[in-house]
Amino acid sequence: MRVGVLGARGKVGVEVCRAVEAAPDTELVASVDAGDDIEELARAGAQVVVDFTHPDVVMDNLRFCIEHGIHAVVGTTGFDQARLDQLDEWLTGAPGVGVLIAPNFSIGAILMMRFAAQAAPFFESVEVIELHHPDKADAPSGTARRTAELIAAARREAGSAPMPDATSSGLDGARGADVDGVRVHGLRVRGLVAHQEVILGAAGETLTIRHDSLDRVSFTPGVLVGVRTIFTRPGVTVGLESLLDLD
Amino acid sequence: MRVGVLGARGKVGVEVCRAVEAAPDTELVASVDAGDDIEELARAGAQVVVDFTHPDVVMDNLRFCIEHGIHAVVGTTGFDQARLDQLDEWLTGAPGVGVLIAPNFSIGAILMMRFAAQAAPFFESVEVIELHHPDKADAPSGTARRTAELIAAARREAGSAPMPDATSSGLDGARGADVDGVRVHGLRVRGLVAHQEVILGAAGETLTIRHDSLDRVSFTPGVLVGVRTIFTRPGVTVGLESLLDLD
Amino acid sequence: MRVGVLGARGKVGVEVCRAVEAAPDTELVASVDAGDDIEELARAGAQVVVDFTHPDVVMDNLRFCIEHGIHAVVGTTGFDQARLDQLDEWLTGAPGVGVLIAPNFSIGAILMMRFAAQAAPFFESVEVIELHHPDKADAPSGTARRTAELIAAARREAGSAPMPDATSSGLDGARGADVDGVRVHGLRVRGLVAHQEVILGAAGETLTIRHDSLDRVSFTPGVLVGVRTIFTRPGVTVGLESLLDLD
Amino acid sequence: MRVGVLGARGKVGVEVCRAVEAAPDTELVASVDAGDDIEELARAGAQVVVDFTHPDVVMDNLRFCIEHGIHAVVGTTGFDQARLDQLDEWLTGAPGVGVLIAPNFSIGAILMMRFAAQAAPFFESVEVIELHHPDKADAPSGTARRTAELIAAARREAGSAPMPDATSSGLDGARGADVDGVRVHGLRVRGLVAHQEVILGAAGETLTIRHDSLDRVSFTPGVLVGVRTIFTRPGVTVGLESLLDLD
Repeated sequence: MRVGVLGARGKVGVEVCRAVEAAPDTELVASVDAGDDIEELARAGAQVVVDFTHPDVVMDNLRFCIEHGIHAVVGTTGFDQARLDQLDEWLTGAPGVGVLIAPNFSIGAILMMRFAAQAAPFFESVEVIELHHPDKADAPSGTARRTAELIAAARREAGSAPMPDATSSGLDGARGADVDGVRVHGLRVRGLVAHQEVILGAAGETLTIRHDSLDRVSFTPGVLVGVRTIFTRPGVTVGLESLLDLD
Repeated sequence: MRVGVLGARGKVGVEVCRAVEAAPDTELVASVDAGDDIEELARAGAQVVVDFTHPDVVMDNLRFCIEHGIHAVVGTTGFDQARLDQLDEWLTGAPGVGVLIAPNFSIGAILMMRFAAQAAPFFESVEVIELHHPDKADAPSGTARRTAELIAAARREAGSAPMPDATSSGLDGARGADVDGVRVHGLRVRGLVAHQEVILGAAGETLTIRHDSLDRVSFTPGVLVGVRTIFTRPGVTVGLESLLDLD
Repeated sequence: MRVGVLGARGKVGVEVCRAVEAAPDTELVASVDAGDDIEELARAGAQVVVDFTHPDVVMDNLRFCIEHGIHAVVGTTGFDQARLDQLDEWLTGAPGVGVLIAPNFSIGAILMMRFAAQAAPFFESVEVIELHHPDKADAPSGTARRTAELIAAARREAGSAPMPDATSSGLDGARGADVDGVRVHGLRVRGLVAHQEVILGAAGETLTIRHDSLDRVSFTPGVLVGVRTIFTRPGVTVGLESLLDLD
Repeated sequence: MRVGVLGARGKVGVEVCRAVEAAPDTELVASVDAGDDIEELARAGAQVVVDFTHPDVVMDNLRFCIEHGIHAVVGTTGFDQARLDQLDEWLTGAPGVGVLIAPNFSIGAILMMRFAAQAAPFFESVEVIELHHPDKADAPSGTARRTAELIAAARREAGSAPMPDATSSGLDGARGADVDGVRVHGLRVRGLVAHQEVILGAAGETLTIRHDSLDRVSFTPGVLVGVRTIFTRPGVTVGLESLLDLD
């Protein structure tokens, strides 16, 4: 598999290049960053491109890839429905090309969310704790909010009862934030990186699903899954989870 | 749903009776134990029977249920292939009747095993820790061995590489027991009940799935799932997991 | 050691009686509850009394003990400064008698609080998570508030800097409750009993101290420590920790 | 405080230099590595030297420091009794000089070991789990062995009973390694760095003390504690713990 990387000198891009070079079945044929000539991707014969760039440039990058019949695996943020519609339109003229738009390439995080949502209807209670370094600006984390939303949706669909909670007195904030009826707690502790725990409980037992992300390189196995499989999925695919074979 | 309980005065049976009485959609119509007349199940119009008795009597119990068209949810142990074949034979004469043989009714434990096996091929390393009270006779626990076997099978099927381990010196036993190539560690600590953790790791991240069973009543939600769904599965079903809707 | 129990038929009292009978060096000589004659304690020759009764009756119980030269180990709640002063006054007339007033007899909980406070000045960040069954009325738990206050006091005394927290956007409650500048998070999950975790973090490392209380009997070892040592401490002693030999 | 660093270009030394420069009360006045002139330490007026070098050169380094009245904080390994005796002899000629020999500068690890040993006599059971990346050569880790030895010593001194363990059948290695009667379990999982957990249990409760070291910089706060306090301790001090104010 001949791979090009866009954003190749960014923090994430550097790790992607290293992983593509290290894997036995992928070859790094072009490393492009701001100021470089994007035509290099075509000249080098890239079959798939990995893009970790910036919302301002990613659409131009993808138009180029689609026009040149190159599949794309995209970790850049900022995709709304209008952008996805635009990609759909461009792809009508390139029916074999696949574009993966993934907000999260950590397979561990994806499995945590999936397992939590699958298990949620079988338990009376579910709560989410996310733990991060104290330089993080938002609380709760985006992953924790997304997890809570998936849990809430799974319980709605299953007709689960509201969770029990007899709290009648206490301090503001003690019970965390409410995301669609799921309590989410955010810790900020020096020394931590990015961690999340989902605790599910029924009479006499609990099930805990925890994800610890200790290093940026945790994204690279998921990127490689995308690189290896996106050519089997023409059109736009949102979320790496649909490329994992989980059933 | 009219429910009878066999082994109704045993430790587990008492909890089953309580749960059947407490649930809004099940009614306890017969409680039978050693010395009682099993005909009571039929007289009371039981539609499904829960059996937590003894390997010596469970086959007679099941013949009675099958002959009377009563579904059965069985937690009694000691089923080998010969016994399952015998049940199949009896059930040919009662085509609508379902019998669930389940070694484990804890939904948390079942999900832990399933999720661990599903996730195992996506990670380089997987190890199992089980933690129990110090009065337990076997180490590792049966659940931990079963979990390790399921993990090993999933990795074999996916063609996963052997797990990395550079250990070249140390003390006997430090790396735990080897179950099909999966390391299993057993702790025995006063104050614990029954706990298990599966740790899966890839570059930069880990996923941990933990089950804590703190009270015998953790079996009752799974028994109720069996009671409510076994009538949809004529014949013998082994394992509660196939009655959970997980896909 | 000849021991009497007041509140002997209450949930806690029953366990205390059992523990006193089981220990090799203590003997249960009197079990007294509401409606029984408290004089029985003196008639039976009790040397020390354990009181788990009610705020309305505990002061009368203690006056009786002090007048009869019996040491007391008290788990009953409701002691304010006025009550402690009253005990001091009564004890001036009984100089050899010791009275232990302890809000918490769990040695695990006491060590958790002590270790957390000792370690707190060595770390940039400290947060507290408490996890309980969902029938609990207050959030955060009293133990979590007390732990946070002890941490805050230790940091004040050491001149620790405020903890780092760059949170600038998010949902109400996501960062928990603020107790003296220490963040405290309360989870309510079916299947849990009473659990608490203190997470301390500095550059590149975290230290976590966790206490799991799974059964009411966790109080009994601490009660026995009180029974065995209170005779060495004439006067009023508040808190079991000062009877533990920790330095 | 004017600080010199020996081994300044090694992995650890680089982090030490960075930390000394970043702290408000310390100043980096000399960075010396193999091939540099050690006299630079004296010329620059270093008051204390941090040595992370090699067993082959550390004794020469320390003789130089002692002769020049410079305090030393040493993380280099390989100190046996003969070397400590040699240092004592040299220090008789430099009565004000302090030398700290510390095998571990992680305050989190030191507190974990201390708390575990302090708590051990109050619990029936204690076991140790250490979790590391799979490139580690020894199992269990040196820290885990040391922790188990400290736990065993504390229990011996307190006259604790042997730990309960009813295991009568099972697989080799399932119960871990035996270090002085304390069970130690070693996990090797990709994605982990260096982690350890001590689980202590009594009837109805457990206390867990866990240390997670996620980054080499976790050593620097402990080095700075040494730099700031060694001048108050003339002679040889072994172990950072005696410089922490913990009572």
